[in-house]
Amino acid sequence: MEKNKIVQLGQENIPEAWYNVLPDLPVPLKPPLHPQTKEPVGPEDLAPLFPMGLIEQEVSPDNYIDIPGEVIDIYRIWRPTPLVRAYQLEKRLQTPAKIFFKNEGVSPAGSHKGNTSVAQAYYNKKEGVKKLCTETGAGQWGSALAMGCKFFDLELQVFMVRSSFQQKPYRRVLMETWGATVDPSPSDKTETGRRIQEEDPDTPGSLGIAISEAIDMVIQERGTAKYSLGSVLNHVLLHQTVIGQEAKAAFELIDEYPNVVIGCCGGGSNLGGTALPFVKDVIAGKDIRLIAVEPTSCPTLTSGKYEYDLGDTAGFTPLILMYTLGHNFVPPPSHAGGLRYHGDSPIISLLVKEGLMEAVAYHQVEVFEAAVLFAQTEGYVPAPETAHAIKAVIDEAIRCRESGEGKTIFFNFSGHGLLDLAAYDEYLSGALSDV
Amino acid sequence: MEKNKIVQLGQENIPEAWYNVLPDLPVPLKPPLHPQTKEPVGPEDLAPLFPMGLIEQEVSPDNYIDIPGEVIDIYRIWRPTPLVRAYQLEKRLQTPAKIFFKNEGVSPAGSHKGNTSVAQAYYNKKEGVKKLCTETGAGQWGSALAMGCKFFDLELQVFMVRSSFQQKPYRRVLMETWGATVDPSPSDKTETGRRIQEEDPDTPGSLGIAISEAIDMVIQERGTAKYSLGSVLNHVLLHQTVIGQEAKAAFELIDEYPNVVIGCCGGGSNLGGTALPFVKDVIAGKDIRLIAVEPTSCPTLTSGKYEYDLGDTAGFTPLILMYTLGHNFVPPPSHAGGLRYHGDSPIISLLVKEGLMEAVAYHQVEVFEAAVLFAQTEGYVPAPETAHAIKAVIDEAIRCRESGEGKTIFFNFSGHGLLDLAAYDEYLSGALSDV
Repeated sequence: MEKNKIVQLGQENIPEAWYNVLPDLPVPLKPPLHPQTKEPVGPEDLAPLFPMGLIEQEVSPDNYIDIPGEVIDIYRIWRPTPLVRAYQLEKRLQTPAKIFFKNEGVSPAGSHKGNTSVAQAYYNKKEGVKKLCTETGAGQWGSALAMGCKFFDLELQVFMVRSSFQQKPYRRVLMETWGATVDPSPSDKTETGRRIQEEDPDTPGSLGIAISEAIDMVIQERGTAKYSLGSVLNHVLLHQTVIGQEAKAAFELIDEYPNVVIGCCGGGSNLGGTALPFVKDVIAGKDIRLIAVEPTSCPTLTSGKYEYDLGDTAGFTPLILMYTLGHNFVPPPSHAGGLRYHGDSPIISLLVKEGLMEAVAYHQVEVFEAAVLFAQTEGYVPAPETAHAIKAVIDEAIRCRESGEGKTIFFNFSGHGLLDLAAYDEYLSGALSDV
Repeated sequence: MEKNKIVQLGQENIPEAWYNVLPDLPVPLKPPLHPQTKEPVGPEDLAPLFPMGLIEQEVSPDNYIDIPGEVIDIYRIWRPTPLVRAYQLEKRLQTPAKIFFKNEGVSPAGSHKGNTSVAQAYYNKKEGVKKLCTETGAGQWGSALAMGCKFFDLELQVFMVRSSFQQKPYRRVLMETWGATVDPSPSDKTETGRRIQEEDPDTPGSLGIAISEAIDMVIQERGTAKYSLGSVLNHVLLHQTVIGQEAKAAFELIDEYPNVVIGCCGGGSNLGGTALPFVKDVIAGKDIRLIAVEPTSCPTLTSGKYEYDLGDTAGFTPLILMYTLGHNFVPPPSHAGGLRYHGDSPIISLLVKEGLMEAVAYHQVEVFEAAVLFAQTEGYVPAPETAHAIKAVIDEAIRCRESGEGKTIFFNFSGHGLLDLAAYDEYLSGALSDV
């Protein structure tokens, strides 16, 4: 019989603080700039959009930030998540490598996004905010924030990219079950949405447009509503570090340590949450590599430029120093909606720029081939985003087979794909385009 | 801060044996009868359909049956499942009752069905079977068996009730992702299916027809294929007892014990798996009640007759002594496809007949109201079947509020509803029929 497959920490091992990588970065992060004045953006510039609790986290010099008890109480619903040894996948690949994954798919919304949605809802509630506005593409973020807002009794308006709204009715229903109001974007509810519909009545929408609508609504309702973002920003990656911290504790329990840490990367939140707690070890010269995996259809880190760019299409956001394909870049349609962002987290961008993290890109069909292999060996059906990480894991494990190296490979299973089965249908029937 | 919400056993606490209630029943279970001769059915009658390993379990006099190591290795993917304290639900109901649930939704297929699908695939594989045939209604069983068959390298043919096949494409895709072949039933693949299509080309199909097609195909392919059933039979309930056994061990860890054990009941497998390990305590006069919850639209235990009846519509199965609405009973359409069976497990039927278990029935709309309340407090979105148990839990907790009793209520969260969101959409939009 095999050894224990799951390393499961007890609830007393949920981290009591988030890990803040900012003071440990090899060079300081450059500040966001005001799009007109090009001056660094201060807390007062961000205050209309975010509560002060989150703005402070965005620039905090502290290495650890206490997690409020009310947030930990909610984390207890699904945390600590299991660290799982992928024995069956190893066997199928005939690799001497050990493969481990953290299963963030066990949360009620099915992905890692709840780690920050709950925290963001908490800080907004604490500062008297009544309503949040956000955008969602594939729907993982919108679902997680709907759950977070329901727990803290906040109203939520979600602008869902119109093409996703039409293709993924289940995602909309999930958000509505948790009490959110969901509109296809562009919508009639904002000036931005109405203008864009006039210009192009048949537009399928985009994440850029949906972000602009959410911010537009917050500005309209100034004072009672705030904006919420599910990735990219420092405080979002901060909240996600519960993943990497729990993983480190679980590895310690079984006297293992990863040589490779892999995560898929869109805005960078699941990758950051997983990899950031290992950054100091990389700097210290430990035998460990951090790898970001992205789609070739939106190759921000592998083909983008490292420069200041806007975070959205309409220009509501500050200029951010990051790898970017240009804020007007429209990626071709793919099923990994969560990876279709023109830019990247400034923290992740800096790590890649400084050579502390690698980046690799894959095509859609090879990614789904990896996803099905994973489902057929380890059981869990991965989200299309997560499948990018799995493809990189498989390649690394195969290299180990060829070289005979018994490396320990760790990746974040950021979410399950039970609400993405239409994409599997396309793949299995041979109709999937290979973007 | 609240106390620990999850009681999580380690992997070394996965039960090493299934618990067999047969020797502990207050009166012996009457045997199934041959539909023509009315003589008790022997192992040789069942051998064309099932492997001998399962047939032996069907009538075993042993109290415990060892779980094979290969099966435990697969159980390790998701077992032990968490025992969760529903603090937020308690708070919302302002009840002095303690509410606990076992979360079987964490398995890759999203329900308890994997506990028996893996075992059934194992015993078939061991006896040289190459292919299994089965039916599925809502799709939980077909998905779980597809996963089990993939792990043990067996071919699988699923006959999916035509109306479900059309309404639930995601369930079909999930089965296909795990390598199963899925056809809408009635199909062109069997004599039975072709005959029924000739008689009624527009039939939406039924579970009875799908069972007949699966058995029909096994008979055609005699020798290489066997039949597999996801509920009702003794060996199926046996495999599910890992749920109740783990629950008992988890309750012991926190020095608690349930006064009420609740499960939804279609064929009876999740209820049996949860409640059977408590039957001896009921007989011993301990302060504990077992409650079966069914839909008013298919009220087998609350309105059926306790008599010998066929297990399917076409008459391929033996006569079984059970509560039944008649093998020609066609329940009105409802979203709890897993509870739309005209009969019931003989073991569950006997327990109800002997007064060791209670039964209660609910209408569809009040069930979904309970489901949404649960999702909005505890996060997880329940399957429509599971929501029946939740409705009974809420009623019991409200009675505790009124009487001031601090009872401990335990139920099985048999599966999540992420593939049933169309039903939530109907409920939320006010379009759900109240069958």
